[in-house]
Amino acid sequence: MSEPTTEFVQSLDRGLAVIRAFDAEHPELTLAEVARATGLNRASARRFLHTLVELGYVHFDGRLFSLRPKILELGYAYLSSLSLPEVAMPHLERLVERVHESSSVCVLDGDEVVYIARVPTRRIMRIAIAVGTRFPAFATSMGRVLLAGQSDDWLDGYLATAKLSAITPNTIADAKRLRAELLSIRRSGYALVDQELEEGLISLAAPIRDGDGRVIAAVNLSTHASRGSAEQMREQFLEPLRETAAAIEEDLRATGATWRSSR
Amino acid sequence: MSEPTTEFVQSLDRGLAVIRAFDAEHPELTLAEVARATGLNRASARRFLHTLVELGYVHFDGRLFSLRPKILELGYAYLSSLSLPEVAMPHLERLVERVHESSSVCVLDGDEVVYIARVPTRRIMRIAIAVGTRFPAFATSMGRVLLAGQSDDWLDGYLATAKLSAITPNTIADAKRLRAELLSIRRSGYALVDQELEEGLISLAAPIRDGDGRVIAAVNLSTHASRGSAEQMREQFLEPLRETAAAIEEDLRATGATWRSSR
Repeated sequence: MSEPTTEFVQSLDRGLAVIRAFDAEHPELTLAEVARATGLNRASARRFLHTLVELGYVHFDGRLFSLRPKILELGYAYLSSLSLPEVAMPHLERLVERVHESSSVCVLDGDEVVYIARVPTRRIMRIAIAVGTRFPAFATSMGRVLLAGQSDDWLDGYLATAKLSAITPNTIADAKRLRAELLSIRRSGYALVDQELEEGLISLAAPIRDGDGRVIAAVNLSTHASRGSAEQMREQFLEPLRETAAAIEEDLRATGATWRSSR
Repeated sequence: MSEPTTEFVQSLDRGLAVIRAFDAEHPELTLAEVARATGLNRASARRFLHTLVELGYVHFDGRLFSLRPKILELGYAYLSSLSLPEVAMPHLERLVERVHESSSVCVLDGDEVVYIARVPTRRIMRIAIAVGTRFPAFATSMGRVLLAGQSDDWLDGYLATAKLSAITPNTIADAKRLRAELLSIRRSGYALVDQELEEGLISLAAPIRDGDGRVIAAVNLSTHASRGSAEQMREQFLEPLRETAAAIEEDLRATGATWRSSR
């Protein structure tokens, strides 16, 4: 077996890229498609695919490759190490039952939010987001709550380098306006985003804090603009949302769950 | 960069083993602990860990390594490629609300079942199982439904080689008895497992079939023996469970969801 000579193990990078080539739009891929998606030549793609087949992570039917359930051992090693999703889920369920809108929990990863728990509403017109989904933090209610919870120094660095762009005509894409909004969120303790990530999508978020008062996650409710204005959302849902955040915080403390910040 | 000379890319195998070293019991590991868990020497473990840090999958605080949310991209590449969990979830929620017991969906992976969707009951005494959890198929209600759905040839091979062991005093750990049970499940269309996986745990499962009648998944309800006997469970819950399976099957067909068998 050959050992890489540098610190960086390129084979691992490439193998993980092969896994990531599969997604909801591409659940089954040919060798040529994997090579194209990863930029690997066919011989390399074939080696990685057959290694993953041998390890039980990939199924090969003679023509098409697809991921196998064993792959869950990788991502879920992370998810199961967080007590937060497990603690949060029953509270999200109760909230969704009460207000009939979808509710989620996100954490911050770099300049993006990542969904770690979600309970969709049973309405037909739902927002199609799954655990693992990522969005730029600056344009989402949960992202703003998480950004507002960072130190001033961290925010200075973030605002100096963040790529802000107007995703919709409503998006705050200006660092100065964003900073003002984040300071306002720090004071008010919630974020309301009115069609800044997608037209028609309104979202209200509150922070989840650890025992030391640090913002470790955010919980939100999201709805379609046709079901009410942002102001109506705040009036109706802010109180239930805050109660949910408080209940999650209480359970986290009660279960002695130690949350690891990922940053 | 060095290229492996054999088909099998050992670096990928080792890198994935490093990821798997982290779990709920071991969310944070030192270099020495990763080396011990994976059987790698410290220099190798260090190379893999630093590669994962560089790729954004692992966080290093100077002493402890932990997984970062980006790792979800790997497991969720699989989960999001299945339409089944998304289609099943609202039906599981409705069922749990109706019967006040936890409900899950599993698929078969080799000789194990893997949870791909789950809605826990809100009772305090819950069964702690998460998506991604695996159990030996032979001792679970969903596993038996999935085994019973296999061809006779496949079953012959399975029963000839399966490592059956008595997990509890109730477990069917004999190939002949298991085959008889599976044939009975084929006829009745459901499996009832009474404290064979864990004492106190009773579970009832029904198959989910694709348009061609193949069993592609199983849905269950599980409860604690203190809340009723296995017979009571069958009487009360078999009908709602079957309705749920039928509703999921109908939605799968209606949405044109193409299910990929993982085998």
